[in-house]
Amino acid sequence: MNESQQERLRSLRRDLHSYPEPAWREFYTTSRIVDELERIGVDQLHLGRDVVDADARMAVPDDDELDAWRTKAREAGAREDVLEAANGGFTGALAVVEQGEGPTVALRVDIDALPIREADSAAHAPAAAGFRSGNEGYMHACGHDAHATIGLGVLEAVKESDFRGTFKVVFQPAEEVIGGGKAVAESGHLDDVDHLLAIHVGLDHPTGEIVAGVGGFLAVRQFEATFSGETAHAGGHPAQGRDAVQALATAVQNLHAIRRHGEGATRVNAGVVEGGTATNIVPGEATLEGEVRGETTPLKEYMSGRADTVMSSAAEIHDCEVAIETTAEAPSAVSDDTLADVVYKMADTVPGVTSRLRTDDLGGSEDATYLMDRVQNHGGTATFVGIGTDHPGGHHTPTFDVDEDSLAIGVDVVTGAVRRLSE
Amino acid sequence: MNESQQERLRSLRRDLHSYPEPAWREFYTTSRIVDELERIGVDQLHLGRDVVDADARMAVPDDDELDAWRTKAREAGAREDVLEAANGGFTGALAVVEQGEGPTVALRVDIDALPIREADSAAHAPAAAGFRSGNEGYMHACGHDAHATIGLGVLEAVKESDFRGTFKVVFQPAEEVIGGGKAVAESGHLDDVDHLLAIHVGLDHPTGEIVAGVGGFLAVRQFEATFSGETAHAGGHPAQGRDAVQALATAVQNLHAIRRHGEGATRVNAGVVEGGTATNIVPGEATLEGEVRGETTPLKEYMSGRADTVMSSAAEIHDCEVAIETTAEAPSAVSDDTLADVVYKMADTVPGVTSRLRTDDLGGSEDATYLMDRVQNHGGTATFVGIGTDHPGGHHTPTFDVDEDSLAIGVDVVTGAVRRLSE
Amino acid sequence: MNESQQERLRSLRRDLHSYPEPAWREFYTTSRIVDELERIGVDQLHLGRDVVDADARMAVPDDDELDAWRTKAREAGAREDVLEAANGGFTGALAVVEQGEGPTVALRVDIDALPIREADSAAHAPAAAGFRSGNEGYMHACGHDAHATIGLGVLEAVKESDFRGTFKVVFQPAEEVIGGGKAVAESGHLDDVDHLLAIHVGLDHPTGEIVAGVGGFLAVRQFEATFSGETAHAGGHPAQGRDAVQALATAVQNLHAIRRHGEGATRVNAGVVEGGTATNIVPGEATLEGEVRGETTPLKEYMSGRADTVMSSAAEIHDCEVAIETTAEAPSAVSDDTLADVVYKMADTVPGVTSRLRTDDLGGSEDATYLMDRVQNHGGTATFVGIGTDHPGGHHTPTFDVDEDSLAIGVDVVTGAVRRLSE
Amino acid sequence: MNESQQERLRSLRRDLHSYPEPAWREFYTTSRIVDELERIGVDQLHLGRDVVDADARMAVPDDDELDAWRTKAREAGAREDVLEAANGGFTGALAVVEQGEGPTVALRVDIDALPIREADSAAHAPAAAGFRSGNEGYMHACGHDAHATIGLGVLEAVKESDFRGTFKVVFQPAEEVIGGGKAVAESGHLDDVDHLLAIHVGLDHPTGEIVAGVGGFLAVRQFEATFSGETAHAGGHPAQGRDAVQALATAVQNLHAIRRHGEGATRVNAGVVEGGTATNIVPGEATLEGEVRGETTPLKEYMSGRADTVMSSAAEIHDCEVAIETTAEAPSAVSDDTLADVVYKMADTVPGVTSRLRTDDLGGSEDATYLMDRVQNHGGTATFVGIGTDHPGGHHTPTFDVDEDSLAIGVDVVTGAVRRLSE
Repeated sequence: MNESQQERLRSLRRDLHSYPEPAWREFYTTSRIVDELERIGVDQLHLGRDVVDADARMAVPDDDELDAWRTKAREAGAREDVLEAANGGFTGALAVVEQGEGPTVALRVDIDALPIREADSAAHAPAAAGFRSGNEGYMHACGHDAHATIGLGVLEAVKESDFRGTFKVVFQPAEEVIGGGKAVAESGHLDDVDHLLAIHVGLDHPTGEIVAGVGGFLAVRQFEATFSGETAHAGGHPAQGRDAVQALATAVQNLHAIRRHGEGATRVNAGVVEGGTATNIVPGEATLEGEVRGETTPLKEYMSGRADTVMSSAAEIHDCEVAIETTAEAPSAVSDDTLADVVYKMADTVPGVTSRLRTDDLGGSEDATYLMDRVQNHGGTATFVGIGTDHPGGHHTPTFDVDEDSLAIGVDVVTGAVRRLSE
Repeated sequence: MNESQQERLRSLRRDLHSYPEPAWREFYTTSRIVDELERIGVDQLHLGRDVVDADARMAVPDDDELDAWRTKAREAGAREDVLEAANGGFTGALAVVEQGEGPTVALRVDIDALPIREADSAAHAPAAAGFRSGNEGYMHACGHDAHATIGLGVLEAVKESDFRGTFKVVFQPAEEVIGGGKAVAESGHLDDVDHLLAIHVGLDHPTGEIVAGVGGFLAVRQFEATFSGETAHAGGHPAQGRDAVQALATAVQNLHAIRRHGEGATRVNAGVVEGGTATNIVPGEATLEGEVRGETTPLKEYMSGRADTVMSSAAEIHDCEVAIETTAEAPSAVSDDTLADVVYKMADTVPGVTSRLRTDDLGGSEDATYLMDRVQNHGGTATFVGIGTDHPGGHHTPTFDVDEDSLAIGVDVVTGAVRRLSE
Repeated sequence: MNESQQERLRSLRRDLHSYPEPAWREFYTTSRIVDELERIGVDQLHLGRDVVDADARMAVPDDDELDAWRTKAREAGAREDVLEAANGGFTGALAVVEQGEGPTVALRVDIDALPIREADSAAHAPAAAGFRSGNEGYMHACGHDAHATIGLGVLEAVKESDFRGTFKVVFQPAEEVIGGGKAVAESGHLDDVDHLLAIHVGLDHPTGEIVAGVGGFLAVRQFEATFSGETAHAGGHPAQGRDAVQALATAVQNLHAIRRHGEGATRVNAGVVEGGTATNIVPGEATLEGEVRGETTPLKEYMSGRADTVMSSAAEIHDCEVAIETTAEAPSAVSDDTLADVVYKMADTVPGVTSRLRTDDLGGSEDATYLMDRVQNHGGTATFVGIGTDHPGGHHTPTFDVDEDSLAIGVDVVTGAVRRLSE
Repeated sequence: MNESQQERLRSLRRDLHSYPEPAWREFYTTSRIVDELERIGVDQLHLGRDVVDADARMAVPDDDELDAWRTKAREAGAREDVLEAANGGFTGALAVVEQGEGPTVALRVDIDALPIREADSAAHAPAAAGFRSGNEGYMHACGHDAHATIGLGVLEAVKESDFRGTFKVVFQPAEEVIGGGKAVAESGHLDDVDHLLAIHVGLDHPTGEIVAGVGGFLAVRQFEATFSGETAHAGGHPAQGRDAVQALATAVQNLHAIRRHGEGATRVNAGVVEGGTATNIVPGEATLEGEVRGETTPLKEYMSGRADTVMSSAAEIHDCEVAIETTAEAPSAVSDDTLADVVYKMADTVPGVTSRLRTDDLGGSEDATYLMDRVQNHGGTATFVGIGTDHPGGHHTPTFDVDEDSLAIGVDVVTGAVRRLSE
């Protein structure tokens, strides 16, 4: 990759970084991506409701919230045609280039940001170099700005290469809330894909290191439980109350006490609790936002089923009701060895790659698993590729940043693998 | 009361004290009572199934246990006719004297002992004087030996007095397990009673003090809950188990957490727990013996209903089942002011009475409340009379003893009240 | 009381009602009271830091909050001299009239409002008659507007009467947060008081009914506990977190499980809980606002000591810390029979009084108990008088209102009692 | 191996099977082993206190229990010299043959039985063939009878072979209670060992299958916690009690709620609970027998440290004390690849071996890990070898049995490996 191409990647990434947008609100980001796609020239461009199965979207904010970000994006210069298509939170894009006979290969990148306030110290490169978040309180703290950039870089490179076949790039919204993967998977766009690559930068791997087939995805279910009882004066009529906070407390204790499983790792977390209105009132309502995970999808199902029982019975103990809503969900997935091998071998030939790992554990969750599952269930193969990048702060922290040298490496590795797949 | 009468009371009490028998196993005790009743001469003598409603008995031991005590009583010299009538644990007796026109008055005394090993030190009078328990591990540690003695003393004194009317004395079995009161009440024997007196010695009142109308009976329900799950190897297959001890622990925590009630005192106790078989096995079964109480019967019902919900939902949380059995139960009750007044005034005229209390709280439970309730519901009045006695050790402790001087006081106060009621 | 006097009471009450101010923020209210006191003419007028022991104040809001209300009061026409004296939340007033030799009698009324939005339907008299709360979100929903009015009415009537002695009226701030009573008590102003009367309207007693000596005050302690642990990613590093929500849940469960007490009623409530930041983050902080109560002050102390142990040990279980702050506290108290008798007898002579109760239970908490305790500990007597008033909605609800006819009855009963005490 | 050798193995195994002895009570078993060792002829024979570090023994029964089994063994014909050496529960033996220059190789077998009643149906081979347990209630339900037999068979075969070096066989007592491994390890007998083999039959592997290097040992700690509070009458003085069952319940709930660990599997079990004496008594004492495990020793330490904190703080919550005793403990361990490879290759040459696994997970705990650790820490290598055997019932069930054909296979595989190590 020549210097001007690298400069273009860097510049694009900085533009996206300076305008972080959270899940389902990536209006400006999508607009910017479409600008690039038009510059590159693609054979098909899917936007809005054409990218996803609308009913399968999860964790979509309410209309007021969506509209506020859409209006802001308009003011920031987002294209009216994109805003129109994305109305209702239908952000994201899917581009296709068709280059004759050959396999159908897809690349999935995600594009959303996090509700984190970015560091503003001089030690934080984006602050020092002037491309720190302009949307105060939001930040590209997990590198999805780099992902979108690499996705565009690969698309351009593949288009200009000798690749024979069909190449699709999915710019997926709402990964951070595990909300978009399922909706993209169920759109059917990937059902004809022979090989799917998904990528992630960083993950504690330094610039120059490539992980050919990441594993260890924890299947996850996130939920919100609302316990409802009845208020009463705690001094005068304590037994007239039905105490939603007692129900909550019993649920929290017993969620963590769900028995470990002999077949693999499980997780449970009661992440956010809130309840009651006054010291002297028996609390009539309480909410719990929590999650369960499993090393495999069945292990997640085990935890999920047990959690439902725990919460509903804990409510019963205290004569309360509970409404449980699943807010996000993702299966586990496995990178295919054969496809990971292609990446592994390819990586060795890429300038800048100094270290290769055949595999490594993610130890977290990712809704790319929905896409991987979908492709594999339709007879294709999939792998999740780690692109090392030096990152000063950890993922999801205010000082996270990417080493922009890794952008070109990422583009080259993925492009190389895509080309190899058509040979 | 003359000296020889007092000596007879003392001697009888010591005989009963030396042969303590627990609930539903008072075979020798009943036989000894019948001996006295025959000596005194009564108009009606009810034994065995004639004393109780057989179906209303609670906490009856199994046949082997009953037979063992019955055999032992036979060896100790119990009468064959009484043993025959009492077969199957139908202990206790009801004696009636009919002395012409007048009110029907009843006295209830209880006769069973406790599973406590009696003190054997020289400082403990029964040990020093040679009438310590001969049934090792069992003891009259709550004065029911004195109660039976006073009951017989009153019967004899009333018979020889100018009392006009009908006088019934109930020698009730199984008070300590709250098992006999309901069965006697439901026998119907008390349905025609105009005035019921029940008595208790001690209760922290010294010899010479009389409490005319004890109150503060806590309604009570005792239960046994058996949690059933499924065992599994705790190392290899922890999630294959359904953990009965976790269910038990959740139940215990939440039983105590039943909200206090604005209308009065409540109690809860998880008294005995047991579960599991081995350190490395997920426990498949666990039992809980507990109780709830209330200052009134509705408050006990509140606790009882909540306790059932807590235990069944706690079982559900851990995918277990629970079977809950009520082992004993008694309502609350209130001593009638008018009847207590008779006792209060009468007591003032009795030699040896040095202090009178109009009322005092029991602060515990008693199944005499079933009888009091029954009489009151049929239009009669009832009171529970405290007969003070110096007791070195507390009730239900190995050094409990009664001051035998209080026997005559008790007989005189109750006899006086009974006579007064026919005036 | 003549019609114009009654009209004045009504008018004053409506003015106060239309400008409700919450605890320690009664700037306008105090100003308005001072207006009246100057009109009446008093011998001593204590304001600001002279009314309370500054260190004994509890639950005082922060300076910003105080300043905002003070500024608002200024705009509403509050007197500059009062605003000056009350700076820093030193609201309330204490007036003294000295009428020669005789006993020192005191009356305590409270003056603060509640954070409740007042009903605005036509069925709600203050809305219909145009004196509904002008401070949206705040409301005199417990009748303290009537209390202040009655206090001024009594002061004027006593001053014009044949009362010999010293009469003090305390206009106490911050009763609703149990924050002001202790500070007034510790000011020492009441140490020479022979007889203290405190009043409350309503309490489910209709207009015309007087309760001479309210009892059943529950001693109370309110607290805020902050549990601190350490956040971690719930998927990747669950054991690196120290979970403040687990600590909270264990605390809630075990607070309710504090054993009932044999000597009287106790209460516990975990009223408000909040904790954690995200579904997938181990919660690092959680807060609990709760309270314990007891039928007597020692019972409250029992609950309080156990609660501290429960919370600190619950924190330890989950490797967290907890900081517990007492936000409000009040002892129990007993109305003196002799003083209540004076009120009881007096009430019989007052026009409009149609029913008298010797005593009744409050079943809640009140920080008048601090003042009653203080007076009693210095050799005086105290009683808490209930002034019945028809109230359509319950206390602390949006439709609460007082029957203004009860204002004159209250003034007459209390004035009569005060005069009787100097005879 | 010829037929008469095989017959000798079978006969020996049946003798041991018919006389099962539990941990530290293997008096007859040891005597029988010594008979065989004398027949074979060994260069060193260590017995009694020479086999173990006496202070490192865990879970030793009390003297009465030990003496009863010793007396029984004498009556069954155990040798007096062995009984003398084993007095005090010092069962087990260590035999050494010295055959010149060469490596020091060791084999560890365990010899104790379980407190399980053996099946007596005709379908259960030991019952049908007349060698069912003669010690009713105890059973060789985990194949240690086969282990001891194979140990003797290997010793004899090695002695007669061309093996050059020193060969030690440890007949370890008390594996089932994880009580003997540490004591043998700390005896120092294995400190000069170059290669240690430990074996186990079955483990769901059929006859003919060999696992060269078993892994997945869970490090374990078993403990007994005694919670002590204070009894009180649950009706009259509930708050005077300090409730050990509440402490226990809080501990059980929170033990299971110890957070999962990101670095590997953990386990926790509250296996046996017991507490309280009567329904109406606040329980003053309660016990908990439980365990924690970890995939690695540090993970076990994490669980162990958290468990101690949970139990001591749970006691504090309820104003109780707790005494925690570690009753058994074992580290995790890893089979060395190089040594497992020797077994794996060797197995291929043994008649009857039809399937070989390089490794498999135990998924449980074993105190052979102490010996493996010890050898590895002194520079040697160790592997845990699985010898497949068809077993009709699962391990630790009444119908467990071994296929005696696997005895010869086990002897041949281990002997072959030992010989190979001296080449």
